[in-house]
Amino acid sequence: MHTEHPADGPLTPGLVFEMLQAHQRTAALKAAIDLDVFRAVGEGPGDVASLARKCSASERGIRILCDFLAINGVLIKEDGRYRHSPTSAMFLDPRSPASMHTIAQFLGNPAMREPYDRLAEIVRAGRTTLPGDGNVEPDNPIWVQFAETMAPMMAPMTGPLGALVLEGHSGPMRVLDIAAGHGLFGIEVAKQNPQAHVTGLDWAPVLRVALDNARKAGVHDRYKMLPGSAFEVDFGGPYDAVLLTNFLHHFDQATCVGLLKKVHGSLRPGGRAATLEFVPNEDRISPPMPAAFSMTMLASTPAGDAYTLSELTAMYQEAGFGGVKGHPIPMSPHTVVMGSA
Amino acid sequence: MHTEHPADGPLTPGLVFEMLQAHQRTAALKAAIDLDVFRAVGEGPGDVASLARKCSASERGIRILCDFLAINGVLIKEDGRYRHSPTSAMFLDPRSPASMHTIAQFLGNPAMREPYDRLAEIVRAGRTTLPGDGNVEPDNPIWVQFAETMAPMMAPMTGPLGALVLEGHSGPMRVLDIAAGHGLFGIEVAKQNPQAHVTGLDWAPVLRVALDNARKAGVHDRYKMLPGSAFEVDFGGPYDAVLLTNFLHHFDQATCVGLLKKVHGSLRPGGRAATLEFVPNEDRISPPMPAAFSMTMLASTPAGDAYTLSELTAMYQEAGFGGVKGHPIPMSPHTVVMGSA
Repeated sequence: MHTEHPADGPLTPGLVFEMLQAHQRTAALKAAIDLDVFRAVGEGPGDVASLARKCSASERGIRILCDFLAINGVLIKEDGRYRHSPTSAMFLDPRSPASMHTIAQFLGNPAMREPYDRLAEIVRAGRTTLPGDGNVEPDNPIWVQFAETMAPMMAPMTGPLGALVLEGHSGPMRVLDIAAGHGLFGIEVAKQNPQAHVTGLDWAPVLRVALDNARKAGVHDRYKMLPGSAFEVDFGGPYDAVLLTNFLHHFDQATCVGLLKKVHGSLRPGGRAATLEFVPNEDRISPPMPAAFSMTMLASTPAGDAYTLSELTAMYQEAGFGGVKGHPIPMSPHTVVMGSA
Repeated sequence: MHTEHPADGPLTPGLVFEMLQAHQRTAALKAAIDLDVFRAVGEGPGDVASLARKCSASERGIRILCDFLAINGVLIKEDGRYRHSPTSAMFLDPRSPASMHTIAQFLGNPAMREPYDRLAEIVRAGRTTLPGDGNVEPDNPIWVQFAETMAPMMAPMTGPLGALVLEGHSGPMRVLDIAAGHGLFGIEVAKQNPQAHVTGLDWAPVLRVALDNARKAGVHDRYKMLPGSAFEVDFGGPYDAVLLTNFLHHFDQATCVGLLKKVHGSLRPGGRAATLEFVPNEDRISPPMPAAFSMTMLASTPAGDAYTLSELTAMYQEAGFGGVKGHPIPMSPHTVVMGSA
């Protein structure tokens, strides 16, 4: 997030010009991913001619694109050659286990991008202009893509969330993973506790991605699928823990409270609900990443938001939970909010 | 420009995520300009309800949009109300004489935006995918819009450029302003030297904007129009000075040299050519703004570029000029390059 304050330096129109051109940065990163530039740079030697050859692209195009990436910190240019910056080596070279190049597909898909071409209209209306309920429309196919592509963004969060959920629990337990998506959060609990049984809830086509990941992790014998809408299917239970990751932000507060009541009813007494969310400070403008996430919810949902800790606490309490607490995940923009039934 | 280097802090995917979402910043600023948010904020009192009313927009939309603008330094939020940051007060409130809100129209028009939806294809091809020669297609209507809207971005450059061109010249002189656009550069010379006569060259519909500005500045009796292509019309002359502002970057080096030869032939001996350009350092990746301008030329032209001082010097010299020198304009991303015939 670009947060330099003009008061830090002389007053120039640079910030305005830069914001009006910021869309170029998204386009350049997507183009580089599409052309497999980061793999080619990682292979070396990184001169314009060999990069152009490897990427089946023009030398003029590659030179200008790679210069632009270097200006933006996702490549380094030295003596006319390009090599990885620490960020591009770890997060953009497809050969890196932490590579996030797939998330460009999700964030770049039309349902996520098109609303920004009509943002004034959305601000007027106060809700997405996508058809129906936008990204929370039942069985929206974007969630299959989310499950398939966003795992690298969420993988670093699974360990800390699993540890928080399991704290003090090593014996048999039942866990419900609502809006499981890629399934990584429930799968992590099953990996950390060999006696945990996990039920993943999501649209059926999405759960196929989760089950595939459970199989890869070797926990599929303890992974059960519950296909359907979180607002409609019977959760079963009682559960020791319910996970609600990246889900509440899509809905208005009353809808969230209704869902949390249903979650509460599915937990054993003392069982815990854990949500993973972008949680801005009470001023709603810091830290930049979680605070800016409200814009994504304005553009793509009828009434979602990035809720503050006091708002989430109030929702949990109204639904009957006690001991509500936020646990920011270090080095990430995410917070786990836990409550006890 | 977002240039923080990941080496400055812990390695997180934040920079990648931020680049993939950077297009939101452009969309938010354009939406705010379209909804006249910056005028409404300037009028006060800046609470969500009154801003929503003034902008005929929803409270949810205004709150999330204004939070996003505050995160990005172009508003300030305090006690739940929004007020101008120094940048938004000077460059975004339409009541400010330095307001740049009109440039969003130019930078946001389809010819400037659409290429970024096909940037991988452009990098492959090495040239714009816009029809014909893109933005350098004869009589392209975007240059009327440029002339009408980009003046606020260029106005701060006119004084310094005029002073450089006039240095040592107070008597009668003839000036040719090639690709005059809004005409502000030639008009400034006419204002600084009451004996200067200026000829503006551009497509006829563009020159109507320039003549209008000359009239407003009270110099239209010394302003002559030369409609047509800089590559085709007879320049006339001899001139004491020729201005070539924001023009060479649209073309390849051979084309620039050809044009500079024609300019040279239209100058009296000792007369001077002055170009205004984005001139990156020889590394082509600094300073960020002029260096990043190459991307705009890749996307919108067949063979343009942001040329370095050594490249521009070589072109001037090949065209017969001597004493070539770059004069960076303070507090701006622009450089004036001068040469003598």
